[in-house]
Amino acid sequence: MARKTGSHSEITGPRVRAAALRLFAQHGFAAVSMRQIAAEVGVQAGALYLYTPDKQSLLAELMADHMDELLSSLAAEPMPEEPVARLAAFARFHIGFHLERPEAVFIAYMELRNLTPENFARIEAMRRRYEDALEAILCAGCASGAFRAPDTKLATLALIAMLTGVTTWFRDGGRLSRADVAAIYADMACKSVRA
Amino acid sequence: MARKTGSHSEITGPRVRAAALRLFAQHGFAAVSMRQIAAEVGVQAGALYLYTPDKQSLLAELMADHMDELLSSLAAEPMPEEPVARLAAFARFHIGFHLERPEAVFIAYMELRNLTPENFARIEAMRRRYEDALEAILCAGCASGAFRAPDTKLATLALIAMLTGVTTWFRDGGRLSRADVAAIYADMACKSVRA
Repeated sequence: MARKTGSHSEITGPRVRAAALRLFAQHGFAAVSMRQIAAEVGVQAGALYLYTPDKQSLLAELMADHMDELLSSLAAEPMPEEPVARLAAFARFHIGFHLERPEAVFIAYMELRNLTPENFARIEAMRRRYEDALEAILCAGCASGAFRAPDTKLATLALIAMLTGVTTWFRDGGRLSRADVAAIYADMACKSVRA
Repeated sequence: MARKTGSHSEITGPRVRAAALRLFAQHGFAAVSMRQIAAEVGVQAGALYLYTPDKQSLLAELMADHMDELLSSLAAEPMPEEPVARLAAFARFHIGFHLERPEAVFIAYMELRNLTPENFARIEAMRRRYEDALEAILCAGCASGAFRAPDTKLATLALIAMLTGVTTWFRDGGRLSRADVAAIYADMACKSVRA
C-alpha cells in the first residue's frame, strides 16, 4: 500500500526532536504549539501525537537527551588525573560541548520552569551528576593542596555558570577561535580556585 | 465625574510594569498576551493600549529600566580605588543587586531574542556600558601588575556570567547568607584574574 506524504509512519524521533528544539529555542516552549511542531516536521498534528503524548514529554525528552549526551561525552573524555590539569580539561570539554549545541543549551537552562515537578526532578538529578563530577575535581585539588575553595559546591556552580556563559556571546569567525576562548576560560577557572 | 473601576485613568506605569514583569518571568514574553497583562492589572485590554503601544514596547521598557537602575546603582556605590579591592566590591555589588530582582534579571537575559533590532541595540548599548565599568577595573589591575588577563573583554564576560549565575540557584534561608555567597564569589573573581 502506498504511503501518503506526511503519514505518521514517516515521523521519526530525530526529526520531531530537531523541529521542537528549533521552535522552542526560537519562540520559547510556552509559545509553541504541537500544531506548529507538526507543521515544521511536515505532518498533521494528529500524527505527531502518535509519536509523543504531549509537548511536556517532548520538552523533558529534549532535556534528558541533552544531559545524557553531556554525561556520556564527559565519561568518554580523556582526563588527566592531576587536579589542576583535570580542571583545565573539564573546562575545555565543557566549553567545547556547549558551543556545539547552543539551542539545546539555551533550552536546558531556560525551560526548566516549564517542566512538571516529576520531569524537573529527573533532569535535576542528571544535572547534579554532572556537577558532582566537577566538584570531585575541586575536592581532589583541595585534598592535594593545589586548590583552596571554602565551599566546593559553590565553586562548582560558579565555574559552571562562568563556562556556560560562553554560549551567550561566542560566534565562530570572531577575533578568537573556540580553542583560544577555551584556553583563557580554563586558565581563569583554575586560578579562581588555586591555593 | 466618578471614575469606574478599571478605567484607564487608574493605570499607572509601575502597576503595568510589575504585572508584565511577573507574567513575562513566569510564562515567557511570547506566551503572554496584552489581554493577560490587562487582567493582571485589573483593567480592560483597550485601556492598557492607552498606556503602552504594544507588548514589545513594554518589554523594551522593562529591560531599559533594569539596566538604568543597574547603571545608576553602580554609579552610587562607594568603590575603593585599588583594583583588587575594587573588583571585590564590584562582585559584591553585582551579586547583591541581582539577588534583589531575580525576575528582572531572568527577563533581561532571556528575552533579548524577543527584542526588535532597534530595541536590542538600545539595551545592548546599556549593557556594554556596564561591562565597560568592569573591564576598566581589570585594565587598571593589569596596569598596576595586580592582575594578569590576556583578554580583558573575555575576562569581563566570564566574570559577569559567573556572578549572575547566583540568581539561578540562590534561595534566602539556605545554608549560606547573601553576604557569605558574595564574599566567596568576590574571592574567586579576584583570584581568577590575579597575576
